[in-house]
Amino acid sequence: MDERIHAHAETLVDWSARVDAGDDVVLSVGPEAHDLAVAVAEKLGERGATLLATYSSGEITRAHLRAHDGEFAEPAPRRAMYEAADVVLSIGGGRNTSATADVPSEARQAYAEAAEAAHEARMGTDWVSTVHPTRSLAQQAGMSFEAYRDFVYDAVLRDWEELAVEMDRMKRLLDDGQQVRVVNDGTDITMSVGGRTAVNSCASVAYDSHNLPSGEVFTAPYDVSGEVTFDVPMTVRGTPIRDVRLTFEDGECVAHEAAQGEAVIGEILDTDDGSRRLGELGIGMNRGIDRITDNILFDEKMGGTVHMALGRGYDANLPDGESGNDSSVHVDLITDMGEGSRLEVDGEVVQRDGYFRWE
Amino acid sequence: MDERIHAHAETLVDWSARVDAGDDVVLSVGPEAHDLAVAVAEKLGERGATLLATYSSGEITRAHLRAHDGEFAEPAPRRAMYEAADVVLSIGGGRNTSATADVPSEARQAYAEAAEAAHEARMGTDWVSTVHPTRSLAQQAGMSFEAYRDFVYDAVLRDWEELAVEMDRMKRLLDDGQQVRVVNDGTDITMSVGGRTAVNSCASVAYDSHNLPSGEVFTAPYDVSGEVTFDVPMTVRGTPIRDVRLTFEDGECVAHEAAQGEAVIGEILDTDDGSRRLGELGIGMNRGIDRITDNILFDEKMGGTVHMALGRGYDANLPDGESGNDSSVHVDLITDMGEGSRLEVDGEVVQRDGYFRWE
Repeated sequence: MDERIHAHAETLVDWSARVDAGDDVVLSVGPEAHDLAVAVAEKLGERGATLLATYSSGEITRAHLRAHDGEFAEPAPRRAMYEAADVVLSIGGGRNTSATADVPSEARQAYAEAAEAAHEARMGTDWVSTVHPTRSLAQQAGMSFEAYRDFVYDAVLRDWEELAVEMDRMKRLLDDGQQVRVVNDGTDITMSVGGRTAVNSCASVAYDSHNLPSGEVFTAPYDVSGEVTFDVPMTVRGTPIRDVRLTFEDGECVAHEAAQGEAVIGEILDTDDGSRRLGELGIGMNRGIDRITDNILFDEKMGGTVHMALGRGYDANLPDGESGNDSSVHVDLITDMGEGSRLEVDGEVVQRDGYFRWE
Repeated sequence: MDERIHAHAETLVDWSARVDAGDDVVLSVGPEAHDLAVAVAEKLGERGATLLATYSSGEITRAHLRAHDGEFAEPAPRRAMYEAADVVLSIGGGRNTSATADVPSEARQAYAEAAEAAHEARMGTDWVSTVHPTRSLAQQAGMSFEAYRDFVYDAVLRDWEELAVEMDRMKRLLDDGQQVRVVNDGTDITMSVGGRTAVNSCASVAYDSHNLPSGEVFTAPYDVSGEVTFDVPMTVRGTPIRDVRLTFEDGECVAHEAAQGEAVIGEILDTDDGSRRLGELGIGMNRGIDRITDNILFDEKMGGTVHMALGRGYDANLPDGESGNDSSVHVDLITDMGEGSRLEVDGEVVQRDGYFRWE
């Protein structure tokens, strides 16, 4: 077994999930994630945790949802399992990232509603999501399997403690600041962040961070105005989108266009009251991620990118008792900070041409 | 997908587990059992059942148990999951039937004790175990994958209703009888079955039968005396055994020998007070199984074989409140009823030369 698989498992169990003796761990395993699951099982044994492995397959989900009449009962065993768990580790990795492409959205929505309590119970655990490099993910990234594996481990096997220190600088700038301005090709947008608390998302539940890899600092902006162009190509709801351009006035998106996928962006904006507002401003700081691979788990953390999400904001960014932007959607869009770009906090340049001032 | 996979799924869901709308189903999937799991998920969707898929991998179990210090805590999510389930469907099928061969027996035992409540909760559901044909199981059977697949579907895709009627004849003979005698090459053994109730094990929870395939009628004998030779080769506790010969007096095994694996048989006999007595007499009646494949799920159901188990008996065979043979082991051994063999109930020949009198 590739030694990096063991290192990945150790990072997941120790740094990310902080597993202790006696912890009850649910390990969700994708159909092609077996090798990482075995390495994680070994680490969980070493730590003295219990283990229940579940099988997460798009093909199984598709078969079940499509055959069902849509009147879903609550999946009681799933809820009970999560309620009894301390930690949920999800290892993605299948054979086809489009496996559920022909599941009608009504069926997805109806199932999600029936499984809401189970989902909440999972969110109440120390959960962490990661992926095992697979041929299917390599294909989505347009890369050979071998190169994609290197890419994943470069992103995952960071010196997370060191990165946490660097990201803390960014967090403090945002916490102490009132206004953020992002300038890039086709972008000049300002937003308020005063009173909000940035999250140092360094891939550990100890930092309220639930993705491995992570490497972003994010907060919940408001009073957004200006224009922004998201030049990083993505797949959103199964549709390729490219060069999305949004115009904000008084916090609300008042105009949108896109070189590709404009209809999907329109649908998202029309979802509800909160879907025209930003729920998140995120600063990518993981320099182990050196390219866009059409996978949000990686893309939004790439060093030298900035992302903004339409829709729901995170409670972790808000003062106790305050409610932020509410919406049923949360769609991240990314801009790559190139030559001539600037990220300013209260007029002070924090990042120029894609490089932080301390780099 | 092979149409027989869909037929297997339908037999499992409808005939074996009797899944109804709203049933909470846990589906345990082996690493190579994906295709059958997808077909089962479709059937479960059609029936309106909920679905939670778990991943059952010998390699994961091995990694976890070997790395653990042996002080196992109760796996609470596993117990909670089973307690909330109506049905548990287990689809075996991995890449190596010896995957857990180097897990120390103390670790297995300690884990089994910690997981006892979870095991009991599973036993409280309508559980059914089956296998998806894999290359690893084909190898264990000494068969090509293609031939093994045919073998499995011949065993599984029976006319179970018709077989249930035939097996009911055997059940009534045992229920009404007092004494069974088995005569075969190296075998002349008698046992009492009076007052015991035989189980018509026709692969459905509606008949107290939890294996697919099944096709045996079994009861709980007592007052065993005589000699028996088990000529069907098996692997017991990882050790090949062959031609086991046991001598019984007053219900107890007083002598044993074997052409191969004699020490393992000795170990089993010495386990506890009940391990020298028979817990089960089973009559194989599945004519879809035409050969021995070193897999107890199939071998003990083969038409024209008789098996006896050292150790624990099943409550289903006993009158209410009566306790049968108690032991921590239950080890099935099989004799192939060939030329010159007889199975008698109260002196009446029920099977001769391996053929039932109604065949």
